Amino acid sequence: MALIVQKFGGTSVRDRDRILNVARIVAGTRARGNDVVVVVSAQGDTTDDLIAKADEITHEANKREMDMLLSSGEQISIALLAMALQSIGCPAISLTGWQAGFRTDRAYTRARIKKLETERIESELSKNRVVVVAGFQGINRYDDITTLGRGGSDTSAVAIAAALHADLCQIYTDVDGVYTADPRLVPNARKLPSITFDEMLELATLGAQVLNNRSVELAKKYSVNLEVRSSLTDVPGTIVKEVADVEGMLINGVTKDVKVAVISILDVPDVPGVSFKVFSLLAQRKINVDIILQSIGRENNKDLIFTVALEDAEAARALLEENLARFGGHRVLVDTDVAKVSIVGAGIQSHPGVAARMFETLYENNINIRMISSSEIRVSVLIAKEEADRAVAAIHSEFFD
Amino acid sequence: MALIVQKFGGTSVRDRDRILNVARIVAGTRARGNDVVVVVSAQGDTTDDLIAKADEITHEANKREMDMLLSSGEQISIALLAMALQSIGCPAISLTGWQAGFRTDRAYTRARIKKLETERIESELSKNRVVVVAGFQGINRYDDITTLGRGGSDTSAVAIAAALHADLCQIYTDVDGVYTADPRLVPNARKLPSITFDEMLELATLGAQVLNNRSVELAKKYSVNLEVRSSLTDVPGTIVKEVADVEGMLINGVTKDVKVAVISILDVPDVPGVSFKVFSLLAQRKINVDIILQSIGRENNKDLIFTVALEDAEAARALLEENLARFGGHRVLVDTDVAKVSIVGAGIQSHPGVAARMFETLYENNINIRMISSSEIRVSVLIAKEEADRAVAAIHSEFFD
Repeated sequence: MALIVQKFGGTSVRDRDRILNVARIVAGTRARGNDVVVVVSAQGDTTDDLIAKADEITHEANKREMDMLLSSGEQISIALLAMALQSIGCPAISLTGWQAGFRTDRAYTRARIKKLETERIESELSKNRVVVVAGFQGINRYDDITTLGRGGSDTSAVAIAAALHADLCQIYTDVDGVYTADPRLVPNARKLPSITFDEMLELATLGAQVLNNRSVELAKKYSVNLEVRSSLTDVPGTIVKEVADVEGMLINGVTKDVKVAVISILDVPDVPGVSFKVFSLLAQRKINVDIILQSIGRENNKDLIFTVALEDAEAARALLEENLARFGGHRVLVDTDVAKVSIVGAGIQSHPGVAARMFETLYENNINIRMISSSEIRVSVLIAKEEADRAVAAIHSEFFD
Repeated sequence: MALIVQKFGGTSVRDRDRILNVARIVAGTRARGNDVVVVVSAQGDTTDDLIAKADEITHEANKREMDMLLSSGEQISIALLAMALQSIGCPAISLTGWQAGFRTDRAYTRARIKKLETERIESELSKNRVVVVAGFQGINRYDDITTLGRGGSDTSAVAIAAALHADLCQIYTDVDGVYTADPRLVPNARKLPSITFDEMLELATLGAQVLNNRSVELAKKYSVNLEVRSSLTDVPGTIVKEVADVEGMLINGVTKDVKVAVISILDVPDVPGVSFKVFSLLAQRKINVDIILQSIGRENNKDLIFTVALEDAEAARALLEENLARFGGHRVLVDTDVAKVSIVGAGIQSHPGVAARMFETLYENNINIRMISSSEIRVSVLIAKEEADRAVAAIHSEFFD
């Protein structure tokens, strides 16, 4: 008998039929002799509807009250799923975040889990019940309700799996696993049977929106085996774990990210401290900088070029123009017609030729590389946005066909 | 400076405009130097919508899960009202039932408050905040969410007023007070400036649906001054308290209740024990019997006639017919074309002629009385349903014009 944590997102519980479908999956898992803890998100559009209600009243809602409001969403879905399980003869009980023992810090709307007190969940499991837990929420030390921010339900599921030493944490989603590329883009993309935490982290960061980063980090930290699988088709998904089964695979995936912008600060003085001033200013405003390129100084001037998330581009532009005199720069340019295409895989580290093969493929396809960045298991290039799909297909074909 | 508890029902917070209206009332009360605790129900149709969601999944929803589901409704309204208060510059904080300290027994869907732990509410009041509390809900000793059943938010408000020794508990509703009769029925019905708890209890029981009975009983027990007033017009309402201000008023109100049925068991043997058997059987099935009339025995037989709530009539008929042989009865008749018309007032006790004046008025208007019942401060008559409105108008005219 194993202990399995199963997490279902908002679309998986969006209406009666989907809830009953989830109940059948959960009851089936229990019928095969497993203990099951289920983590669910708010139904379909519930969270958006609640945000709209708050927005009607004030555009600057207090964050504590926002968490009070939003946490009602999961409370509805856990009650409905518990009822659905009971209606098909599967003993079940629902628990809110605070009942399930989620203690967080006090950062409303983006709280971090500090501790999971598992007594209640364990007591319900010992009564042979499926425990249905509200994801995304907890309470802080003032007994006030907090929410965990984007992807919070994944994090809740992994935290439970870690605390209970679960054998497996299954993340049910719209797709049936992690693919070597976006199947909508690359028809012969392959589903990976397994992938390492580090590879998954690089993929998640790069725009493969299957799993939330925080949850993968947590899973890695506590060695929780994850499985990404579909709630609509009963096929094995992708296992995410410390060491992947398939060695020798050079790369695991090709991704593109078009939500990126290139910012260039032209003609800044080629003296020490300029980069520090620019990047510390951006960091103060919580704007993350990704790839950085600094031109070689000429005539005592240089250009500072870097990428930011598309949504931060205008804020970054305004901030830099305002402070341009402090850097001694002359002009700020923002280019949003760019895309970041990346390859991810543990093989990159051990096989030095992998990056070169990627660059060669782009060259053969006449695609110009504007910037490059790499980590031990990832190589990213910045190219023109209109060439991104062609680049992904060509690179995928080079490594997988 | 006074401490005032204000309760607003579902229609008073049904949308953005109504919530902002409530916020203005509350902020105004605070601006006049009072400490304020606000109790709110779920918005408009929220509870019905949630029940419909459960009903789509199962017609026999587990009561614990039902309470988990329904309690999300008030959580939404407290968050929205707190936001609305903050948006107009009034410091406020929302608390769920469990955060506010409502400890109940474990009777899901109809729990009773066992204890109110007021530390959190008092701590928030001491920070000069309006405290917005979710009505209708609490937690039991297993830390599971319970709801208080029909009229629960009124009860929550009175419980807070009692525990904090509040100066006043204002129940905001659709009507602006307690009237001598239903104003839709009797155009010259008058609003009562004050009424006693006992009179209010009799009126509530008799179908004047202004205040829930449990809340009036609780207010009486702990001597909480209540005020029934409107959230839409800023006029004084009706004060409910131990001793009414106006002495000498013979009666306080005339009410009618058409949700009543007369059951007759014909030709039961005129021997001891028959009434006991009939009424204990009904009591076992939780069917309350109101007015009872027993015909004088003739030829060793008698008729047993009594009233029950209309909704219990068919269950009572089935139960009695099934057991007719046990009583030795011959036939069960159910008449639903009846109405109970009542007068209520402390003056009835001290002025023996009041009941007679009521009967005389009915006689003068050619309205036949089928049954009579009375308490110290109430006289009720059972008459034909089609004559009920005429009877109410005539009696009201006799006592108030």
